[in-house]
Amino acid sequence: MPDTPDALLTARMADAIRFLALDAIERVGDGHPGAPLGCAEIAVALFTRHLRCNPADPVWPDRDRFVLSNGHGSMLLYAALHLAGYEGLPMEQIRRFRELGAHTHGHPEIAPELGIEATTGPLGQGIANAVGMAVAEARLAATFGSDLVDHRTYALVGDGCLQEGIAHEVISLAGHLRLGKLTFLWDDNRITDDGATDLSISEDVRARFRAADWQVIDADGHDVVAVSAAIRLAQGDPRPTLIACRTVIGRGLPRLEGQRGAHGGRVLASDCAEARAARGWDHPPFTVPDDVAAAWQAGVSGRNRDGYTTWTRRRDALPAEVRAEFDRVSDARLPEGWHAPLRGLRDRFAEAGAARPSIEVSAEIVAAVSDGMPELFSGAPDLEGPTKHKGALHAFTAQDRSGRYLHYGIREHAMGAMMNGIAAHRGLVPVGATYLVFSDYMRPSLRMAALMNLPVITVYSHDSIAIGRNGPTHQPVEYLASLRAIPNMLVLRPADAVETAECWEMALANRTGPTSLVCSRQALPALRGPGIEENRSARGAYVLAEASGPRRVTLIGTGSEVALALTARAMLQAEGVPTAVVSMPSWEAFAAQDAAYRASVIPRDTVRVAVEAALRFGWDRWIGEDGGFVGMTGFGASGAPEDLFRHFGITAEAVAETARARLR
Amino acid sequence: MPDTPDALLTARMADAIRFLALDAIERVGDGHPGAPLGCAEIAVALFTRHLRCNPADPVWPDRDRFVLSNGHGSMLLYAALHLAGYEGLPMEQIRRFRELGAHTHGHPEIAPELGIEATTGPLGQGIANAVGMAVAEARLAATFGSDLVDHRTYALVGDGCLQEGIAHEVISLAGHLRLGKLTFLWDDNRITDDGATDLSISEDVRARFRAADWQVIDADGHDVVAVSAAIRLAQGDPRPTLIACRTVIGRGLPRLEGQRGAHGGRVLASDCAEARAARGWDHPPFTVPDDVAAAWQAGVSGRNRDGYTTWTRRRDALPAEVRAEFDRVSDARLPEGWHAPLRGLRDRFAEAGAARPSIEVSAEIVAAVSDGMPELFSGAPDLEGPTKHKGALHAFTAQDRSGRYLHYGIREHAMGAMMNGIAAHRGLVPVGATYLVFSDYMRPSLRMAALMNLPVITVYSHDSIAIGRNGPTHQPVEYLASLRAIPNMLVLRPADAVETAECWEMALANRTGPTSLVCSRQALPALRGPGIEENRSARGAYVLAEASGPRRVTLIGTGSEVALALTARAMLQAEGVPTAVVSMPSWEAFAAQDAAYRASVIPRDTVRVAVEAALRFGWDRWIGEDGGFVGMTGFGASGAPEDLFRHFGITAEAVAETARARLR
Repeated sequence: MPDTPDALLTARMADAIRFLALDAIERVGDGHPGAPLGCAEIAVALFTRHLRCNPADPVWPDRDRFVLSNGHGSMLLYAALHLAGYEGLPMEQIRRFRELGAHTHGHPEIAPELGIEATTGPLGQGIANAVGMAVAEARLAATFGSDLVDHRTYALVGDGCLQEGIAHEVISLAGHLRLGKLTFLWDDNRITDDGATDLSISEDVRARFRAADWQVIDADGHDVVAVSAAIRLAQGDPRPTLIACRTVIGRGLPRLEGQRGAHGGRVLASDCAEARAARGWDHPPFTVPDDVAAAWQAGVSGRNRDGYTTWTRRRDALPAEVRAEFDRVSDARLPEGWHAPLRGLRDRFAEAGAARPSIEVSAEIVAAVSDGMPELFSGAPDLEGPTKHKGALHAFTAQDRSGRYLHYGIREHAMGAMMNGIAAHRGLVPVGATYLVFSDYMRPSLRMAALMNLPVITVYSHDSIAIGRNGPTHQPVEYLASLRAIPNMLVLRPADAVETAECWEMALANRTGPTSLVCSRQALPALRGPGIEENRSARGAYVLAEASGPRRVTLIGTGSEVALALTARAMLQAEGVPTAVVSMPSWEAFAAQDAAYRASVIPRDTVRVAVEAALRFGWDRWIGEDGGFVGMTGFGASGAPEDLFRHFGITAEAVAETARARLR
Repeated sequence: MPDTPDALLTARMADAIRFLALDAIERVGDGHPGAPLGCAEIAVALFTRHLRCNPADPVWPDRDRFVLSNGHGSMLLYAALHLAGYEGLPMEQIRRFRELGAHTHGHPEIAPELGIEATTGPLGQGIANAVGMAVAEARLAATFGSDLVDHRTYALVGDGCLQEGIAHEVISLAGHLRLGKLTFLWDDNRITDDGATDLSISEDVRARFRAADWQVIDADGHDVVAVSAAIRLAQGDPRPTLIACRTVIGRGLPRLEGQRGAHGGRVLASDCAEARAARGWDHPPFTVPDDVAAAWQAGVSGRNRDGYTTWTRRRDALPAEVRAEFDRVSDARLPEGWHAPLRGLRDRFAEAGAARPSIEVSAEIVAAVSDGMPELFSGAPDLEGPTKHKGALHAFTAQDRSGRYLHYGIREHAMGAMMNGIAAHRGLVPVGATYLVFSDYMRPSLRMAALMNLPVITVYSHDSIAIGRNGPTHQPVEYLASLRAIPNMLVLRPADAVETAECWEMALANRTGPTSLVCSRQALPALRGPGIEENRSARGAYVLAEASGPRRVTLIGTGSEVALALTARAMLQAEGVPTAVVSMPSWEAFAAQDAAYRASVIPRDTVRVAVEAALRFGWDRWIGEDGGFVGMTGFGASGAPEDLFRHFGITAEAVAETARARLR
């Protein structure tokens, strides 16, 4: 028990979190008390003694980032932010915890203006976001100097986050990159939902972190002074740091303390009363005594006042041009004239008319765009060669923070979640390149990007059975459908170099969600000539070749199959059937067009046939249930690409015949 | 250089692999030479000195399992199996490497009759399969005794497999479970596709394994004697073992040896010639000298002859009943009368008419079925409480191999891939339970289960926004679509307890692919009464309530929304609109019905309206592009379930109104 006035006040600062959490969870009848109660002292140590932030300017670019990776403990975050003085989280919001329309959602949802840096809940994502944030900080400091960019990233992490595979991917990479400003605070409570952690784990977690070159510090997680001292040690080490905080889950709640049920168990009114008695907390629900409130404010706003003022002065003293650039990237605004190189390239591609792999075209675009867009930050999970998205960029490493290309290693999931953290941090535009089949490895992160409205661009190569002999494990067939199924995901599949440039313009313009740009390994013939100013792909679908005569057939293709549709059109037209070809690089963009445009591009009174080297799944929306479809019906096979297209019946002849069958 | 006749012959046994691989890759102009050349000695050590197998009886139940986790090195496996004498892989198959129709696919595809235990390629999957196989072995040994079941599992693993997050999940769990018969042979070549491994990793891999309680042994990967000695050490330790084999990628190919390009670089005819000169191999392509062939056969078939005979005698001496049971589970046949308890339960549910969460019903079914199906092996990733699929089963642990429930820890991906390994091993029926949103974490493994035709059952709880306050991170909206998009995946979403029993019968009957059984956390009212013998769910969709009068409207629901459809039907019928309700637990099963049945259940000349608390994506196939749909249009939100259904407009009123709008 604390015995000095200071220690007593500190204990009550933690109890303020406990009782806000307990009262809110009890009131709504739902929530997870284990973490807010078990980590209250950790939050006091971090928020009131270390975290660089300003509740009056929550989006201060040089603030420390804090991610609650164990997002189910959301009341810990809400309570701490409320006590810290974030105006967007007044007591009324705490009372309305988990009510529809409140900001105090079941799991934290990204809202930097409230102090919430990331949406968390699916375990492991938050710590990986944090690693991405630390990368962004290091990279931006290399550009703008430590006068402007010098902050730390903290993540609170539970056993679940550490058991998930993604954790090891980012632990390994963070150690390799020597992200010294990154600190994980581990809620080492030895309890998970099933019970004692030793039901399913007996590894030496500390040794595992040390093996990845992290500093590891042990601390009593209920001792604010000890946790604070550990954080200070973390700040002095060039390695990332794990602070293993030994805690008791549900601490302060007599019935559940230290037990399995504390994680997400129901909190009763009697629990709140018993906890009050046990902790000597005699304040009504949703009430913070003045001295505790004042101590929190002194610890957060008061402690940071000078640092914030000093930083603001430094920023204001910058040369106008540097200031403007810093503000621009901090606000995640693209540079003026960012379209220009894209349009230049598009016109060059249109003139050249060369058959090229769209992944190679995409790489050329990234190389061209990156000159005028210093915030572009590329990377790939050990596929530099096949995806080519490094170009002339040099690597971001432990030794060189000025690099703009990250070798993520064979860690797709880390790449996905780190890109989310990079985008959430702001200041960089993350671009990642991999094979389309590996999108499944990062799918939980793709979903989070969509849910967080983050402008993250993933470029995929090897988009179909056209990759040939590597076989079905590496041939996507269901991936276009499964990416298109993610809400707020812009999926683009360009048909040639010109469309690739147009799609890149769409990807960069998409500031409120992720983009999946799906490219081919094989060369795609040039389909689009010069002389068109409009970004036709931006309409989602457009008439690439109109019928000669009143249209009877509409052939719709995407990516590499548009060329097949054109060949089929020639066959049908030769037979006297007026046939149009529609190129459809994006369902989402097409769905956003008005009904008249959509009807003009794909008229329902024509025979509609789609061709895509993938499953029909979802296509009935565009071609109707009686529409024709030429594509895959199951997994691919290992063989020469030309053999596979013939074997699976994805040919111009099949497209023409599918249309003919519907004309009879 | 080897200097004794024995050592010379051993070296040539490895070179036989090298040249089969080189010649095959050169011939087809495609493939990955790095691993077959770099791991040739490891294969010789394992196959000719340790692996328990019988090429004349490839599916010998007590054979050791070998998984090539770095599947791109497929020619290593094909060459070794060919040399070992597997008749399904004659020289003609080696010649036809990567040709459409050959068994020598780009990446290995599961075919136990050829010696190929798993389809591998997507990195990390293979080692996780191996861990599942080791679990199956330990569990079966507890049932049948070590006289019948006593074999080891080996996996060859590259740097990529170890960097993937799934690797750490299974490393941690395998150490915890003390799977002493599991050995990883690590191709420690310090090269990945991007170049030197130190581009992206600097962790101490050995220390990481030790932290997870593995034995770690170093060996020169090009010294057959050293690797063999390490394997022997592995056999004597109660812990799983990592043998770190220091190798040179592409060893023996002068132009690429030890270099980045060796991984998947093109092999030229000149390379084959230079390699021949360097290694003193003067045999024509696709030729194995007799003494080498004989040594391989002696090392594999010869060495195993006695062991196989002894084992066969032991099996033949078993009491008939035990023998029959062993054969049954080894052949993955379900017990006679396995339907009976399911049908009994179904009838009980129909009589009781109780509203119950379908996840709870599923748990009751598992408990009932597991009595008569000793091979049922359940588990969950730290969701024992919410999924309830442990029941009275006790845990499979390091100390107790008789358990039938695995606490996978917070490791969904491990669960998915280990279940694949358990199913591929044969002898157990793996069942895993988790939340539907976490299926994304195991999606790469779900795809592999579908591709491998493995009967793996995953039961999902928390299937929609009905989970309420936990919010959008935990509310599936796109998951039904994305699971339905996987070829060969049977997706089931039962509407009440009776359908849950019917769906379980479908899941167990599905022997050629995985099943996703999607359940609710909340109680579902009973919709089906007693007296029906047929498994109606097995038709995929069926008329639950016919229209009173000539049908004008067909309302189609799945799972929890079928009840809404019934309420809407009552409204419409009260207005004089004859309306039927179709329950549609499975798209795949319905698609497999004949056209007449499908037309009778969902007639196109009726107004068709579907209701599902998920996205419309894919539904146009069943309702047409003009059909009505009541469901989600984006992510969910945090709030009370009833508030959410109202907020998102998923109500009986909305269903009725959607139908009315189409009747006008």
